[in-house]
Amino acid sequence: MNNMKFIISFNGAKYHGFQSQPTAKTIQGEIENALHKLTGETVRITGCSRTDAGVHAREFCFNVNLKSTIPAEKFPKALNSQLPTDIAVHSCVNADEHFNARFTAKSKQYIYLTNNRPERDVFLQGLAYHYPYKLDINLMQKAAEKFVGEHDFAAFCRSEGKKLVSSTIREIYSFDIEKSDDMMIRFIVTGTGFLYNMVRILAGTLIYVSEGKLTLCDIDEALKTGDRNKAGKTLPPCGLYLNKVNY
Amino acid sequence: MNNMKFIISFNGAKYHGFQSQPTAKTIQGEIENALHKLTGETVRITGCSRTDAGVHAREFCFNVNLKSTIPAEKFPKALNSQLPTDIAVHSCVNADEHFNARFTAKSKQYIYLTNNRPERDVFLQGLAYHYPYKLDINLMQKAAEKFVGEHDFAAFCRSEGKKLVSSTIREIYSFDIEKSDDMMIRFIVTGTGFLYNMVRILAGTLIYVSEGKLTLCDIDEALKTGDRNKAGKTLPPCGLYLNKVNY
Repeated sequence: MNNMKFIISFNGAKYHGFQSQPTAKTIQGEIENALHKLTGETVRITGCSRTDAGVHAREFCFNVNLKSTIPAEKFPKALNSQLPTDIAVHSCVNADEHFNARFTAKSKQYIYLTNNRPERDVFLQGLAYHYPYKLDINLMQKAAEKFVGEHDFAAFCRSEGKKLVSSTIREIYSFDIEKSDDMMIRFIVTGTGFLYNMVRILAGTLIYVSEGKLTLCDIDEALKTGDRNKAGKTLPPCGLYLNKVNY
Repeated sequence: MNNMKFIISFNGAKYHGFQSQPTAKTIQGEIENALHKLTGETVRITGCSRTDAGVHAREFCFNVNLKSTIPAEKFPKALNSQLPTDIAVHSCVNADEHFNARFTAKSKQYIYLTNNRPERDVFLQGLAYHYPYKLDINLMQKAAEKFVGEHDFAAFCRSEGKKLVSSTIREIYSFDIEKSDDMMIRFIVTGTGFLYNMVRILAGTLIYVSEGKLTLCDIDEALKTGDRNKAGKTLPPCGLYLNKVNY
């Protein structure tokens, strides 16, 4: 058996997330089908992360053990020909037998993309969140600094998600907010791992700070108490991109 | 009655073109429904152009006669709230009673957008044509010059389209091919008007020239004979944008 490491991207708009579900269309399901068509093997792939319905990925990693003798470098083209065009395989290499896309990951970077122009953009539907009002980037950046470091992020996790994890403590390495000339705002956050809906709640909390609905002190309070009601709203999935996984 | 002139954009991926059809979802149908909800009036709007299924528009113009006393500047926001998010109204002004979005148009500009990177881009699905092989921009530009001026474009029109027009003579003012650093190629063509599928066949013909399937002389021949078989293939609709209409 060969442990193969793949890098893919996907537009999640039409999928119920990465992880296989018995009745819904998922990224994992599409890839396992394509691998079956290509190699005849019925396999389970291990993704670096779950993703919610509608969430995208620019560099998503998975690994899989295959009997196939197809050379690694032939896999991207061969798999792409079997996959729908909203999933793309960029690379495949032979990995160490202990490599596990989920547990070997050192950090992940997510970007939350917001169209801050007054008018909606018909070509960004499903690809960005539209927020047409003024945002205070400096204030949001100041608030974002409060998330950097090791914290209990219980207040920034959808309640169903807490049952899935043994701890709600995570470390955030950096959190930057960038605004480009075309009025797109990027919330760029890198950390060890993220709880269910965490990035969408963090970005929503920063927008609440800009709107004056929450203060910097409220963020301290949310981190201290773990009370979901003290954090901001969950932004929609269409703006969220898993940008990179570091091993 | 007030003759109102609207500028809209739309992502045509989910529509059977602009023009109303009894059973299919069209841009015109959506707008007439939204106007009905807003004003109670049952109206027919006049679009600057037909567009094929899957074709997009950045600046599409239509006009409509309304009894409504809603001020023109209030229409964009009010209509947007009634429209799906892949159609956006950008402006509305009171027009001269003789203004007709179709017949008053002096020229139109179309852009055919091609992703020339080796790999497909999952975020450009439905928004660009993917052509992964090398293209000779200089040679295509030289070929494109042959289309500039007044010509009989019968060879560059889908056969069903010929029955719809009294003449296949059109004038092209300019035809430029631009390649940007991110490997996107734009075929930018401006002219008095365009036949059915004409821009998609023109761009497909230029790609055939780059591939060596057609020569510069073949283009002269196609223009002279009007023979569709002497022109290139029709590129898919997803890459085509009506970019601007000039009055």
